[in-house]
Amino acid sequence: MKVLVLGAGQLARMMALAGAPLNIEVLAYDVGSGQVVHPLTQQLMMKGLDTAVTYADVITAEFEHIPHNILEVCEASGKLQPTTQAIKAGGDRRLEKKLLDRASVASARYQIINNRDDLEQAVNTVGIPMVLKGALGGYDGKGQWRFTSVEQADQLWQEISPFLAATPDQAIVAEEFVPFDREVSLIGARGKDGSIAVYPLTENTHHNGVLSLSVAGKTDSQLQSQAETMFKAVAETLDYVGVLAIEFFDVGGKLLVNEIAPRVHNSGHWTQQGAETCQFENHLRAVCGLPLGNTTLLRSTAMVNILGEDTLADEILSLPQCHVHWYGKEKRPGRKMGHINVCANSLDELNDKLGELAVYLDPAAFPVLCK
Amino acid sequence: MKVLVLGAGQLARMMALAGAPLNIEVLAYDVGSGQVVHPLTQQLMMKGLDTAVTYADVITAEFEHIPHNILEVCEASGKLQPTTQAIKAGGDRRLEKKLLDRASVASARYQIINNRDDLEQAVNTVGIPMVLKGALGGYDGKGQWRFTSVEQADQLWQEISPFLAATPDQAIVAEEFVPFDREVSLIGARGKDGSIAVYPLTENTHHNGVLSLSVAGKTDSQLQSQAETMFKAVAETLDYVGVLAIEFFDVGGKLLVNEIAPRVHNSGHWTQQGAETCQFENHLRAVCGLPLGNTTLLRSTAMVNILGEDTLADEILSLPQCHVHWYGKEKRPGRKMGHINVCANSLDELNDKLGELAVYLDPAAFPVLCK
Repeated sequence: MKVLVLGAGQLARMMALAGAPLNIEVLAYDVGSGQVVHPLTQQLMMKGLDTAVTYADVITAEFEHIPHNILEVCEASGKLQPTTQAIKAGGDRRLEKKLLDRASVASARYQIINNRDDLEQAVNTVGIPMVLKGALGGYDGKGQWRFTSVEQADQLWQEISPFLAATPDQAIVAEEFVPFDREVSLIGARGKDGSIAVYPLTENTHHNGVLSLSVAGKTDSQLQSQAETMFKAVAETLDYVGVLAIEFFDVGGKLLVNEIAPRVHNSGHWTQQGAETCQFENHLRAVCGLPLGNTTLLRSTAMVNILGEDTLADEILSLPQCHVHWYGKEKRPGRKMGHINVCANSLDELNDKLGELAVYLDPAAFPVLCK
Repeated sequence: MKVLVLGAGQLARMMALAGAPLNIEVLAYDVGSGQVVHPLTQQLMMKGLDTAVTYADVITAEFEHIPHNILEVCEASGKLQPTTQAIKAGGDRRLEKKLLDRASVASARYQIINNRDDLEQAVNTVGIPMVLKGALGGYDGKGQWRFTSVEQADQLWQEISPFLAATPDQAIVAEEFVPFDREVSLIGARGKDGSIAVYPLTENTHHNGVLSLSVAGKTDSQLQSQAETMFKAVAETLDYVGVLAIEFFDVGGKLLVNEIAPRVHNSGHWTQQGAETCQFENHLRAVCGLPLGNTTLLRSTAMVNILGEDTLADEILSLPQCHVHWYGKEKRPGRKMGHINVCANSLDELNDKLGELAVYLDPAAFPVLCK
């Protein structure tokens, strides 16, 4: 099978690595450069989207902010999985909120803001404090504001109105501020035959809006079951095929959907060492119409993001259950350069192992782990 | 780090897959075509051995039957690991036997045969029954004869003499026939600093001279300890760097070395699922001067070779602890096309799982598993 991935970053790269043993050839369409490359070598493989679309058996995506004209070409070929609708819902908070309403899954109260009047109205419909999020293009904490008192309205609007003007079809989704205990995410796959396989919930810690640490296997069966029910509802509403990630707020044991990502997800990277089948293989199995792989947790596993660093102490390679995954990217401040998976036989042991790892990490680059 | 592998087959391919997460770029020199290719895509990467030798930080090999002029170029660069001496010992049974003598490890009694007189003499020095093996180029059971009664001598010599004449510097190594209980192998790595990390012994079943099934974790600590001592002796005698495989005959609990392979080995493929660090990653760690990875057995694991088949029943992908590894090769009768790793929580469970797998396999292609 030949799979074309829209996007040529680390997610396509890890798909290529997971697909090779199944004789699944993964190519990547670099949306920025318009080139079709191999996601591991970044070598040019062929010219033009049309050629690649014809060559591929299946087309999928590693991110949701894909120009709509590209999605149209792919959708028209009948090879795109998940669908344009699912990808767009991941890239537009308005569509995402409508999807969640349609699937009847709980999420924060919201209102869409296109003008100053909408902002005033949101004070009543959503309530203060609220969080304002750009509908398009924002992730990793970018394009977000907190609205905590009515007096802020003028100043906020001064910031928001140029933001709205800067991008065609931009809007703001105002959401009630949810005083959550923690953020968790569920990664799962849905096959072409409607079969579903989900991984155990992952607890996620962010720093400055960017994922820093994910730990699998820390939640109870009640929370897992809530998450699975909501996953099923969203995936079935979209007739979704592939790996889907859902981020939740855990508010006193009740889950609210924060956002969805119609793709393999950073908080699922732990599955490379901690699960029977990793998320990258399961995504490929799903979109290729193969049976889904087993998603059992093999052992307690955590993932630590490597941000803006391109070297680590060699000692880390000596730590018995640490696995380093670099993405082969050029160093840039704050850039996702790789991750470290750490495994242990219990959560207590995992905590100890994260402590041993932290000794060899630069606290400035790994503030969550080295605190 | 950039590693050039001599040989562009499945072993180089699996090294490339294991190296990518460590940002180790693996290129392959196809000795047959003289081209430098990427071992995963088989795309041409650069022209000429000299260019590749200059480009690489480290040079290593995936097989031992490499023309000596190529080895000379690589050795002269100072980048080749393991050394020419080790690679040659793997490709010439005369050198292998001398190495084993020098390392003082037990192996079958032998004599080198260059002419008819040597054959007569071997009847006394080695004894009948004996096994005659081509010194150069023979593996997977090719170029081997059994010598079981003196009356055979004439007929045998008629077969052997054209064999000797066909290849310059060819010879026969006559070995006493060892009535072994089973064949086992030890895969291990030795680092540039002399550190050694070995995997648990694997029990191997061959069919028509070709490896069919390997099962890890079936041997006791006494056998493991014997094997480790012999591994250390051989590796240190060669000042070996990289992964080294040693095949043994188990004769009533006493190990005799059958042969060595100065490289990652088919009987170590189970480490991809069954060990903390797989043999491919450990080979790269060793030759790149990085710390060796942990070799602990995670769970009982078996490897089943896929010979001459390029499809399997989809149901196999549904078996929870089965992992299929294809090599992306064109189908040819008997060719090593891929393997299946099967994991379980105990040896009994592993046996059951192999039985479940066998249901979906063609008995003609998998005679050992389907017997």
